[in-house]
Amino acid sequence: MKRITLLSLMIGLLIQGCHQQEASKGEGKSLEAIFPKGNKGPAELFTGNAYNIGLVPNDSVYHTVVGNVYFEPGARSNWHTHPGGQILIITDGEGYHQIEGKPIEIMKKGDVVKCPPNTRHWHGASPDTGLQQMYVVTNTDKGIVEWMEPVSDEVYNSK
Amino acid sequence: MKRITLLSLMIGLLIQGCHQQEASKGEGKSLEAIFPKGNKGPAELFTGNAYNIGLVPNDSVYHTVVGNVYFEPGARSNWHTHPGGQILIITDGEGYHQIEGKPIEIMKKGDVVKCPPNTRHWHGASPDTGLQQMYVVTNTDKGIVEWMEPVSDEVYNSK
Repeated sequence: MKRITLLSLMIGLLIQGCHQQEASKGEGKSLEAIFPKGNKGPAELFTGNAYNIGLVPNDSVYHTVVGNVYFEPGARSNWHTHPGGQILIITDGEGYHQIEGKPIEIMKKGDVVKCPPNTRHWHGASPDTGLQQMYVVTNTDKGIVEWMEPVSDEVYNSK
Repeated sequence: MKRITLLSLMIGLLIQGCHQQEASKGEGKSLEAIFPKGNKGPAELFTGNAYNIGLVPNDSVYHTVVGNVYFEPGARSNWHTHPGGQILIITDGEGYHQIEGKPIEIMKKGDVVKCPPNTRHWHGASPDTGLQQMYVVTNTDKGIVEWMEPVSDEVYNSK
C-alpha cells in the first residue's frame, strides 16, 4: 500500500503541475501589449483609466504624431476633433468609436478606423473588455487635437 | 501489482498530457499576427518571401498610407526612397533596417523607426527570425515610394 500511496502522491503532483500550466495559459487572455503602458491620461480628458504612450512626436518633417492608448474596460476619451484627421489601429481587445451623428461602431484587433479633419468623435474600450489602440494623427501642420466635453454615460451606454 | 501497473499507466498518460501542453505552448513562438497575411511581394521588389497588406490607401484627406508587411526570415525589401518619409512600427519578431551610409540597426517588437524623405533605405527580417512590420508613409502628396536595386547578400550579411 505504501507504494500505491507514493504513486497517488506523484499523480497528485502531476495533476497540480498540469493545472498550473493551464493557469499560466489563462493569463494569456489579458491583452497583448506591444508598447510600454505609458502614463494615465488626465481626468479632464478621459473617463476611467486610459494610459497613453507617445511613439512619434510632432515635427516639421513627418507632420505625423503616433502613439498608443490602453483603455481599461469602460474607459473612453472626451469628445474631440483633429484639425488634420486621425487613423486608429486596434492591436488587441474591443472598443467603441463614434463620430458625432453616427452610430457607435465596435473596433476589434486588426481594425483600422479613420476620422476626417475637424470632425467631433470619441473612442475607448467596451464596457467589459479593454482596448489596445494605436493612433496616427495626420497633417499635424494643421494642428493635433482640440478637446471638448466628456462622453456621458447615456451616450456611452447607448450601444 | 496490477494496481501499480494501472497507476503507472495513468502517470504515463498524465506526463504525455503535460508534454502535449508544452508543445502547443511552443507553437506560440510563431509571430503574433494582427492583420491578415496579405499578398506576396513581387521578386522585382523583394528578396525572399514578404507578404503585404494595405490598411489605409492613399487619398487627398489624410496624405498617409498604412499597411503591414510580414517578412519571413532572410526576406528584405530592395533599396528604395519615400519622397515624404516613412515610419516603421514593429509588432513582433526581429528585423534589420539600414539607411544608406549608416550601420544596419536591429528592430524588435515595440520599436518605432523613422526614415526621412528622399533617403535611400531598406528593411526586412533578420536571418533566423521573421518580422511583423507596420509602415506609415507620410506626406504622400509628395509621392509614396521609388524602388531601386536589390540588397546584396554581402550588404545583408554585414550585420
